[in-house]
Amino acid sequence: MENIRRFAVALSAAVALGIVSIIFVGIWVSHYRDGLAWDGGSAEFNWHPVLIVSGFIFLQGIAIIVYRLPWTWQYSKLLMKFIHAGLHLLAFIFAVISMVAVFDFHNAAKIPNMYSLHSWLGLAAVILFCLQLVLGVGMYLIPFTPASWRAAFMPLHVYTGLLLFGSVIAVALMGITEKLIFGLSNPKYKDSPPEAIFVNVLGVLLVLFGALILWIATRTSWKRPSDQILHTLHTNGEGDEGSKIGPALSELSDGADAEPSGDVRRRSNKLEDQEN
Amino acid sequence: MENIRRFAVALSAAVALGIVSIIFVGIWVSHYRDGLAWDGGSAEFNWHPVLIVSGFIFLQGIAIIVYRLPWTWQYSKLLMKFIHAGLHLLAFIFAVISMVAVFDFHNAAKIPNMYSLHSWLGLAAVILFCLQLVLGVGMYLIPFTPASWRAAFMPLHVYTGLLLFGSVIAVALMGITEKLIFGLSNPKYKDSPPEAIFVNVLGVLLVLFGALILWIATRTSWKRPSDQILHTLHTNGEGDEGSKIGPALSELSDGADAEPSGDVRRRSNKLEDQEN
Repeated sequence: MENIRRFAVALSAAVALGIVSIIFVGIWVSHYRDGLAWDGGSAEFNWHPVLIVSGFIFLQGIAIIVYRLPWTWQYSKLLMKFIHAGLHLLAFIFAVISMVAVFDFHNAAKIPNMYSLHSWLGLAAVILFCLQLVLGVGMYLIPFTPASWRAAFMPLHVYTGLLLFGSVIAVALMGITEKLIFGLSNPKYKDSPPEAIFVNVLGVLLVLFGALILWIATRTSWKRPSDQILHTLHTNGEGDEGSKIGPALSELSDGADAEPSGDVRRRSNKLEDQEN
Repeated sequence: MENIRRFAVALSAAVALGIVSIIFVGIWVSHYRDGLAWDGGSAEFNWHPVLIVSGFIFLQGIAIIVYRLPWTWQYSKLLMKFIHAGLHLLAFIFAVISMVAVFDFHNAAKIPNMYSLHSWLGLAAVILFCLQLVLGVGMYLIPFTPASWRAAFMPLHVYTGLLLFGSVIAVALMGITEKLIFGLSNPKYKDSPPEAIFVNVLGVLLVLFGALILWIATRTSWKRPSDQILHTLHTNGEGDEGSKIGPALSELSDGADAEPSGDVRRRSNKLEDQEN
């Protein structure tokens, strides 16, 4: 129970940070900027940070840890995979619309597109995210995919997912930097007006949200019990080649407070699925 | 041997990317900017990107994966811990000097300090890096520290180390963004002069370097053999409480190409140390 309690604290903190971030970006565009519209002007641009924070960061973060929620362990792994994929798809749609908003705004204002490092890395992240989504569905939601392919691909799937999540936050921080430099003129960013401080705090909140999601995703003791067993089997080399299991989301650490594996075995008597 | 060959390819690519990044930042400050000096002017500022890329990014990256180098497995774990800590200390010194350069430059040019999100997150990263270094030395290089403390702290040590490494690269990307906006006036950043493209490429190189270091650090099958055994013991719950072992750097995945654990056991017959 101590383990579950710690998970609940970490999850609550992550969700709270995510929601506060969304509120912050809402206040930023409505109180300090021109609000939201779809008119080619700066109010259309404002959809960009709103959709990135609420979709590409918050929804993606929740999608990553959805297997960790203890109250979902009673549902089938297949259902959870659909929710995992569905949330990622939603995050992707948010990201695409947010990019359309920027291109519209740039084109209307005669500002060049794709010149900044932020735009290069942001577009690369969206393209790789799409590839990850397509490959993920092909590997884990199409029933014909061989179990050996699924297992072989899992380490890359997990690594790429976490790397992309971290990269999206890094790109958002670059975007905040750009917007505060370009958007603040009198007083300037360097004069630290209230908007500058406020949006800097938003940046800090996004980093803390990302750090917590990565912590939750990489604690083995917080994994779905069947996935913990799969990991144990794999580490021991007990699985035969045909059903070799890739470890599930992250084994960065087993944690000093890991439940004894015997306990885990009692909690789940069968392997629900052949991959994470 | 296939496993070692793959490691060699990944390591070579990471080192090459790191060295090319250092060359890029050197060309940036010498060809496009005013070179290096310690005079309070822009040439003093230029030490900032040079020392961050060569020290806080490249040296830190190498420090993280130093346990993975197969030709070091013949040396004692203690020696490798000193090298791991020493490289991190060097990276920290580079970071501190690089910050002094910026403060000097700002003060001479009457530019405010610490107003940007880049400066907030950069300073936080340096402070947390220092804390991580002090705690790491206290935990793993002072002989009196109880093994149970070492084991309990290891998951946090590994997580924080990798998170800080990724964060430092993110902060560097924000710094590049700032410098290109402030430094380019005619033509501007948005006009994509050669310097803008060149330094954007430097940003991409840093991301690729970081991604490769994180990949290397999180492959269990590339770990020092004794650490792989410690991980197996821990995952199985075979270790008694007093000598409970935290897993070593990263268990993000065991990889489909993991060596059978029997092989690993043959390669090393004793546990050299009680922690990573």
